[in-house]
Amino acid sequence: MKGKARISRAVIKRLPRYCRFLADLKRKGVYRISSQQLSELMGYTASQVRQDFNNFGDFGQQGYGYNVEELHDELETILGLKRTRRVVIVGAGNLGRAIANYIFLYERAFDLVAMFDNNEKLIGSEINGIYVQNVDELADFLKRRRSARAAVDIGAIMVSKRNAQEIADILVAGRVKGIWNFAATDLNVPEKVALRDVHLSDTLHELAYYVTKR
Amino acid sequence: MKGKARISRAVIKRLPRYCRFLADLKRKGVYRISSQQLSELMGYTASQVRQDFNNFGDFGQQGYGYNVEELHDELETILGLKRTRRVVIVGAGNLGRAIANYIFLYERAFDLVAMFDNNEKLIGSEINGIYVQNVDELADFLKRRRSARAAVDIGAIMVSKRNAQEIADILVAGRVKGIWNFAATDLNVPEKVALRDVHLSDTLHELAYYVTKR
Repeated sequence: MKGKARISRAVIKRLPRYCRFLADLKRKGVYRISSQQLSELMGYTASQVRQDFNNFGDFGQQGYGYNVEELHDELETILGLKRTRRVVIVGAGNLGRAIANYIFLYERAFDLVAMFDNNEKLIGSEINGIYVQNVDELADFLKRRRSARAAVDIGAIMVSKRNAQEIADILVAGRVKGIWNFAATDLNVPEKVALRDVHLSDTLHELAYYVTKR
Repeated sequence: MKGKARISRAVIKRLPRYCRFLADLKRKGVYRISSQQLSELMGYTASQVRQDFNNFGDFGQQGYGYNVEELHDELETILGLKRTRRVVIVGAGNLGRAIANYIFLYERAFDLVAMFDNNEKLIGSEINGIYVQNVDELADFLKRRRSARAAVDIGAIMVSKRNAQEIADILVAGRVKGIWNFAATDLNVPEKVALRDVHLSDTLHELAYYVTKR
């Protein structure tokens, strides 16, 4: 693998999509695929696909294409999905609970270690064996985890728009490396912390286009 | 506007992102922006940005750039966000409730008209004035709405993986024009029905990359 630092954010953004399409192909029993076929499936150009993978080494073979299983495995390694990441969820309302279940069911590489909320009705309630703690304890929890060499890697923000920045600040001070933000607002975090927003609206607005047209 | 039919799916996929970035710029008081600046902000090339907008007419001015408010307004019109779309949510668990709240709070162009579930404990419960109905009534509900000239445009699938295809079939038979799928599975729907999946994993897996690297 070449130096990771040089790989652009745009390429990294595409990796989970490649990974997902390759997992589908694997499930369907597809053994190999050309960059041309993969590009058509994903809506990229074949040269884009080849360029993207070239960032990480020599995966394809001229005239043969890619071995689906090997490529999928490589991408999982590159993305860091072969190791377990510790996650806390802040906000234990409907969305927080739904995402907790989702992680338990489908995301083997992520270990949900705690949930927090400021709502007295939710504090102490249980989701898949995790008890919701008072959000006032979040900063201390992150600190204790660091001392125990079991630092939290990712904080997921599932609180309202109005509380989201305050929670982000606590997570940053608690030295999480990544923030997964579902609040419909822009957050300010230092550059060293990776921030990804889930924009529920994007696919809904795409649908608006198609249902208007038809 | 040129004929919609010729516009590629890849372009349509980018429109909600443009719209979101322009809304942010508007909120920040930015009055105009060049294709170069917009492209840097979004991680596209400037020529991509110009090509994308050229599909819909002449928005920018050579040497001036785009008027942020006008362009945002045009994109909302193109996406169909100036009209109201009727939505049903199937699956009234945590995720269904979270999405119902989200639509109520943030999506003015979408009118949530009904929710359905197969769980006796959830049927009859209320979310923002919407009572959860038995999913057995879904087919009939869609039919009655069509007769009343108030057809449902979009069905949102928030049920488990294993029930998702069955629900999709009912929605298709009930002639919805679009399906917003949150179930972690591939659905088969006829080409005339627009299908968009929300892939929660994509941003989480991107974060995995960055927290592994740092």
